[in-house]
Amino acid sequence: MRQGNLLYAQSGGVTAVINATACAVIQACRRKKVGVYAARNGIIGALREELFDLSNLDSAAIAALRHTPGGAFGSCRFKLKSQETDRAHYERLIAVLRAHDIRHFLYNGGNDSADTSLKIAQIARTLGYPLNVIGVPKTVDNDLPVTDSCPGFGSVAKYTAVSVVEASLDVASMHESSTKVFVMEVMGRHAGWIAAAAGLAGKRADEAPHVILFPEITFDEAAFLAKVKATVERVGWCTVVVSEGVKTAAGKFLAEAGTTDAFGHTQLGGVGPMIAQLVKNKLGYKFHWAVPDYLQRSARHVASKVDAEQAYAVGKAAVEYALAGKNGVMPVIRRVSTTPFKWNLVPTPLTKIANVEKKLPRNFISADGFGITPAARRYLEPLIRGEDAPPYDKISGLPKYVRPKLKLAKKKLAAYPLAEK
Amino acid sequence: MRQGNLLYAQSGGVTAVINATACAVIQACRRKKVGVYAARNGIIGALREELFDLSNLDSAAIAALRHTPGGAFGSCRFKLKSQETDRAHYERLIAVLRAHDIRHFLYNGGNDSADTSLKIAQIARTLGYPLNVIGVPKTVDNDLPVTDSCPGFGSVAKYTAVSVVEASLDVASMHESSTKVFVMEVMGRHAGWIAAAAGLAGKRADEAPHVILFPEITFDEAAFLAKVKATVERVGWCTVVVSEGVKTAAGKFLAEAGTTDAFGHTQLGGVGPMIAQLVKNKLGYKFHWAVPDYLQRSARHVASKVDAEQAYAVGKAAVEYALAGKNGVMPVIRRVSTTPFKWNLVPTPLTKIANVEKKLPRNFISADGFGITPAARRYLEPLIRGEDAPPYDKISGLPKYVRPKLKLAKKKLAAYPLAEK
Repeated sequence: MRQGNLLYAQSGGVTAVINATACAVIQACRRKKVGVYAARNGIIGALREELFDLSNLDSAAIAALRHTPGGAFGSCRFKLKSQETDRAHYERLIAVLRAHDIRHFLYNGGNDSADTSLKIAQIARTLGYPLNVIGVPKTVDNDLPVTDSCPGFGSVAKYTAVSVVEASLDVASMHESSTKVFVMEVMGRHAGWIAAAAGLAGKRADEAPHVILFPEITFDEAAFLAKVKATVERVGWCTVVVSEGVKTAAGKFLAEAGTTDAFGHTQLGGVGPMIAQLVKNKLGYKFHWAVPDYLQRSARHVASKVDAEQAYAVGKAAVEYALAGKNGVMPVIRRVSTTPFKWNLVPTPLTKIANVEKKLPRNFISADGFGITPAARRYLEPLIRGEDAPPYDKISGLPKYVRPKLKLAKKKLAAYPLAEK
Repeated sequence: MRQGNLLYAQSGGVTAVINATACAVIQACRRKKVGVYAARNGIIGALREELFDLSNLDSAAIAALRHTPGGAFGSCRFKLKSQETDRAHYERLIAVLRAHDIRHFLYNGGNDSADTSLKIAQIARTLGYPLNVIGVPKTVDNDLPVTDSCPGFGSVAKYTAVSVVEASLDVASMHESSTKVFVMEVMGRHAGWIAAAAGLAGKRADEAPHVILFPEITFDEAAFLAKVKATVERVGWCTVVVSEGVKTAAGKFLAEAGTTDAFGHTQLGGVGPMIAQLVKNKLGYKFHWAVPDYLQRSARHVASKVDAEQAYAVGKAAVEYALAGKNGVMPVIRRVSTTPFKWNLVPTPLTKIANVEKKLPRNFISADGFGITPAARRYLEPLIRGEDAPPYDKISGLPKYVRPKLKLAKKKLAAYPLAEK
């Protein structure tokens, strides 16, 4: 098979370190003398034949992607349906790849993207187009199976733990005459990994966070209020971390913004203020609440070094896998040892990953359902280890993030209209 | 006058760097061989005779306060009223100071604390008790007059600008098929300094934030929506920063004006979610919102170096002023030059500072009311310059913040019951 070119695309919610993966992909392609393109706004750009030609991209800009958050080429929430339903999309995709002699397709995303990658590999086979499809892991939700962790998660975990430590020092200072209960809402629609990471903030008895509400544990109002009350009476104040995915006994999200994204996921938000108001109404305590939202998943300034390294490593490995002729696999992180923390990468079939969600195991959650166990701590702690601060500009005082000057490759096919979302 | 001891107390909302001031006070007292106490939970502790005796505090713990957020000794929201109304409190305070031979009182806070400091100086004179009262500036709101800036502000300003840069890179990546409008709520009930600092995130045309809503500018719904719409149509997406203090034409807080819906149900959340919902309802754009709340004012991990240095300097100067016999003054920051940025400290009578609020000047706000001017940028930029990361623990991956082991001095007076808040 001819070497051909490589196309890299980002998918789904971006992270603080997804561009480190992009950086690795581009640098590896340059070393191997492989032409490299990036799809504009993920799979949407691939369908529209909007491909950034990265061959003339400045090396310094590529290197700076290593420490720049967000998705440099744009990402999207756009899920390809079955081959029957979306046959035209799949055929178009192969036509675009063929037109630009792309023989390697790297799709950087979560469970949905692994599923899409599989389908693309399948259609290429059906159409007799030689293509190596590699899934590249990424998701702050940390809910991919098989892999020890997902690039992007370690950094949001570190941001969350550091923020809980800091805000709780604030509340501790003020509780005598002001805020008694502080509620922080974190991401994690179906799995409580980020909520669990908040638990790293406190190690000794009565250290914050005092209460964590996980999506894996049905919300029990009476037990929650009793725990908050007991904490305030004993400690003087209480920090609560609540996952956006907390559900009622009926299996409904506690808070729903009423909108759904393109994947059909309900858009969540607002469970933090809701829980704070509940505490005020039922217990009368003065409260504050925080919802860091996108700040948590884009906080490259407080990224985990381990996470940034893993994000880079999976990008490099993905190129190597593709060039070695692997197809339908993902480089997943295997934990070799926890103390000292050692890991390596293993190619794993996407069939084992697509559409499977890894929830927080019950033995990571304390018996009362409101905290993490030593097992959770052992798993999580290495993932937030080490700092990897971006360089800062001496005059502006801001991180030197890059927005590379990108150039679209000349189109070779007719336009392919795609409905605006 | 005998040298006597020194009492330091923290007041009002704490900051990322108020402990740097505390560190400076303690270190200066030790160098000068002055006994030093800290009031527990601010003025409340002074009234209750709850004084931490810092004479045996470990030097390493004191040094670590330099990089630890929150108020190590506790702060409070408790305002002493006039001498007539609260005469008993004032007399009690002097009795406590006398009992512990305290001849120097340092009160670390904002406008209210400057006012309290003045009243304490006055009552001491009336009662013939020799006392040097020094106000020490602190407030994230940056609303003290005379001083160029307030310790605590530079760090929240840096946090805010960095967060807007990072979250906006995220939104830029996703806007094609997901969030079009991102709203971030910032602190600043009466003055728009923090909101203005968000403006540092973008310098070139169409860089985020695209819209800032200041407390100094009456909210104009039609103009706001038109600006958001035009931005989304031109740029593809829009970042909005809204100050918690934004008001309606009737002078009401927007957040309060909308606390009930048409059915009289209490609405959850602050002005951030409210503005986001308004955009959704009127323009139909998909939105996300963030309310960092306490995270912003406690984010020591991304503190401004200039801010941390100024916070230390005012603490050191306050001790020097007191020991030199100054009374009723505050060390204020004087900007000597902007380029290069140079500053020094000048003792200023508290009468010029108490109860005066410094709002954002109109010439710092752009003509359309939605952005900052070059004059604002020139003023703000030096304040977020430089990084001063705390040390991190290699195993836990968390900053090495300290919670010093504090010991209360033996009480010498009868108990003084103070109503719980």
